[in-house]
Amino acid sequence: MKNFQSLTKGEMKSLYSTLTKEYEAAKAKGYHLDMSRGKPDTLQLNLSMDMLAQNPYDLIFTRKGTDVRNYGELAGVDEAKELFADLLGVKMNNIIMGGQSSLCLMYDAIAKALLLGVYGGAKPWGQQGPLKFLCPVPGYDRHFAICEQFGIEMISIPLSSTGPDMELVKQYVESDPAVKGIWCVPKYSNPSGYTYSAETVDAFAALKPAADDFRIFWDNAYLVHDHGEKKDELVNIFDACKKYGSEDMVYEFFSTSKITFSGAGLAVFAASENNVKFLLKQMGVQTIGYDKINQLRHVKYFKTADGIRAHMKKHADLIRPKFHGVLADLDRDLTGLGIGEWTRPNGGYFVSYDGLPGTAKRCVELCAEAGVKLTAAGAAFPYGIDPEDKNIRIAPTYATMEQLHQSIELFCLCQKMAALEVLMG
Amino acid sequence: MKNFQSLTKGEMKSLYSTLTKEYEAAKAKGYHLDMSRGKPDTLQLNLSMDMLAQNPYDLIFTRKGTDVRNYGELAGVDEAKELFADLLGVKMNNIIMGGQSSLCLMYDAIAKALLLGVYGGAKPWGQQGPLKFLCPVPGYDRHFAICEQFGIEMISIPLSSTGPDMELVKQYVESDPAVKGIWCVPKYSNPSGYTYSAETVDAFAALKPAADDFRIFWDNAYLVHDHGEKKDELVNIFDACKKYGSEDMVYEFFSTSKITFSGAGLAVFAASENNVKFLLKQMGVQTIGYDKINQLRHVKYFKTADGIRAHMKKHADLIRPKFHGVLADLDRDLTGLGIGEWTRPNGGYFVSYDGLPGTAKRCVELCAEAGVKLTAAGAAFPYGIDPEDKNIRIAPTYATMEQLHQSIELFCLCQKMAALEVLMG
Repeated sequence: MKNFQSLTKGEMKSLYSTLTKEYEAAKAKGYHLDMSRGKPDTLQLNLSMDMLAQNPYDLIFTRKGTDVRNYGELAGVDEAKELFADLLGVKMNNIIMGGQSSLCLMYDAIAKALLLGVYGGAKPWGQQGPLKFLCPVPGYDRHFAICEQFGIEMISIPLSSTGPDMELVKQYVESDPAVKGIWCVPKYSNPSGYTYSAETVDAFAALKPAADDFRIFWDNAYLVHDHGEKKDELVNIFDACKKYGSEDMVYEFFSTSKITFSGAGLAVFAASENNVKFLLKQMGVQTIGYDKINQLRHVKYFKTADGIRAHMKKHADLIRPKFHGVLADLDRDLTGLGIGEWTRPNGGYFVSYDGLPGTAKRCVELCAEAGVKLTAAGAAFPYGIDPEDKNIRIAPTYATMEQLHQSIELFCLCQKMAALEVLMG
Repeated sequence: MKNFQSLTKGEMKSLYSTLTKEYEAAKAKGYHLDMSRGKPDTLQLNLSMDMLAQNPYDLIFTRKGTDVRNYGELAGVDEAKELFADLLGVKMNNIIMGGQSSLCLMYDAIAKALLLGVYGGAKPWGQQGPLKFLCPVPGYDRHFAICEQFGIEMISIPLSSTGPDMELVKQYVESDPAVKGIWCVPKYSNPSGYTYSAETVDAFAALKPAADDFRIFWDNAYLVHDHGEKKDELVNIFDACKKYGSEDMVYEFFSTSKITFSGAGLAVFAASENNVKFLLKQMGVQTIGYDKINQLRHVKYFKTADGIRAHMKKHADLIRPKFHGVLADLDRDLTGLGIGEWTRPNGGYFVSYDGLPGTAKRCVELCAEAGVKLTAAGAAFPYGIDPEDKNIRIAPTYATMEQLHQSIELFCLCQKMAALEVLMG
């Protein structure tokens, strides 16, 4: 097919009419497919069943003899802290084990900052008038929803393949004390799949915030979620911070939601000892500790950080063909048409598609009418508003290969139709 | 032994000297006992091991076919909601399943009320200037710690064997819009063991708060924790509220921390549908759902509310001898001395001891010096201050019978010494 931009009006009309017939045919198939969320599929979940099948009598005592079935151990059991410290490249005293949701840890971190303040801050965030967060875009909708719920103004920062525009980040963070945080998914970013470069991580570590209570929310959700031919390398931000003495500026989040079970994994918080001590004092009023049996269950199953990495290879083997399938369909149907670009991530859960401006909502609508539910257009932007209305997040993991193929074929068809509608004016 | 109040100064002196010798002898035994917290003992925890030993392949799908290992089901799986609705005497739509800690649910409920407001409230609590909570005393130290952390002023309300002084509660709640809540442990109250009477529950339901966003925090932690000869009956507060149309005023909390595992049970929230809908909307930003495998694990093990009640009989059989032991020691050593009173609860986790004013701190100190750690004097009061310095919480469950006997003997000795010190001036 020719580049759409070079078609005459007449060619466009005729092409649109052909595509419409294809679309009606697809619609008649009565699809009922959901591509909206980055969920692991059943086979991935099955990978961790042996963890649940462990003898419960082996899951009672920690190595120092604490009965995990009883109250206590606010920060988590030592062996769990050690395992994830090792994986994240920090020390045991930098870790707090959370419940089963890292989203919940992030939400709570912000709620506590608002109500009680953070380490080194003179006042709680909530007592300082209007607040702002920087949001690299496209980004993770659930991050933005937290800011929106708490009335924190969001400022979009363009994200490229090396990370956020650090000139702009520096400018905001170093000039405006109302800027309290920035959302980052530094490896295989949701949804672009980009990994922050060493220079970007260094630029984060070098920030000298105007606020005494600014925090980088480093959501390292996809740290071990490689599945490409190559593997992206992310510099350890705490190592980078050492050079500048800026360790207190970082809150890191991690979870096993896409390692073991999305509904029943472990969430992990990592930060400087100053932050950890300060937060544990606040947390001690909130809970007596999270589920320690589940902590021991994970530790005894994986044993080491390498155990987790080996397990992730099995996930990769299940995920890889799905990404290949999506990319093959996009390549075949859309290459050379001049109506869009898409990312080719080495890991993570998404492919990010940028169409012509003004096409995303229409494409999602067309897909929905034909029975394929995509992530809402604009979801990857603050307030759900994509200023150019061009970005769509594709989530390949949950669907079967067959469903995926059907969905992406339809997606390509709808992209072409939406593009033609824009080009025809 | 004679009533202490009738002793001459000389008799007191001589008795004190005898007791001091006994105390020194006890001290020489080098005890190292901890009676400070209401924790289940190992035998109680063992009661639920079969729950953990269930075949994990039976714990994958809910009855409507949802895979509990994946994301979703914000409010919890239907069968868990149904089980606890049945136990608490409400409907499934009145239930939200939490993580593993009801304390965490309470803390979060207050944090959300402060930052975002509650159903029917015009503004978030946090935007309304100084706030107040009513605190029946003696009460639960962890409740009070939440108010203290958030800077909510606490007002003590005397608690008797029928519940809080409802005249006083009504006066505060109906006149002062700054009063946003009251902490209640309505059955086998921590630490007194008192259960609110039907009249008390009715008086709660009949409240007409001055604030449009007042909530009763109904921490029904010991609903099924009977272990006495008799069983206290608590009126269902939601039933009571129906008469007055005041269901929206109540937040009920429950957990299986002292049914299955203190570190890995289930927490439950119950409220009107208005409250549940409103809170789920707030919660949807915080998490995608709590641990559903653990929910199914509990449901498949207990099956019905009666299953839970039958299980609690086994707990009662383990707990009962400990309470009998404590009461027998107190009766034998302190009856008729006129230096203290203690409760005889039919359930729950504590015995509450009121000594002579000015003796509690001293008694706790004497016990600690002889190797027996008690709950800090004053812990059952806001800000940790018992205005009469007379109340001590005794937690019989965690220690062995032998340890308990040693501890209570020492406690009685220290009570006598502390009383004599006060009486001798």
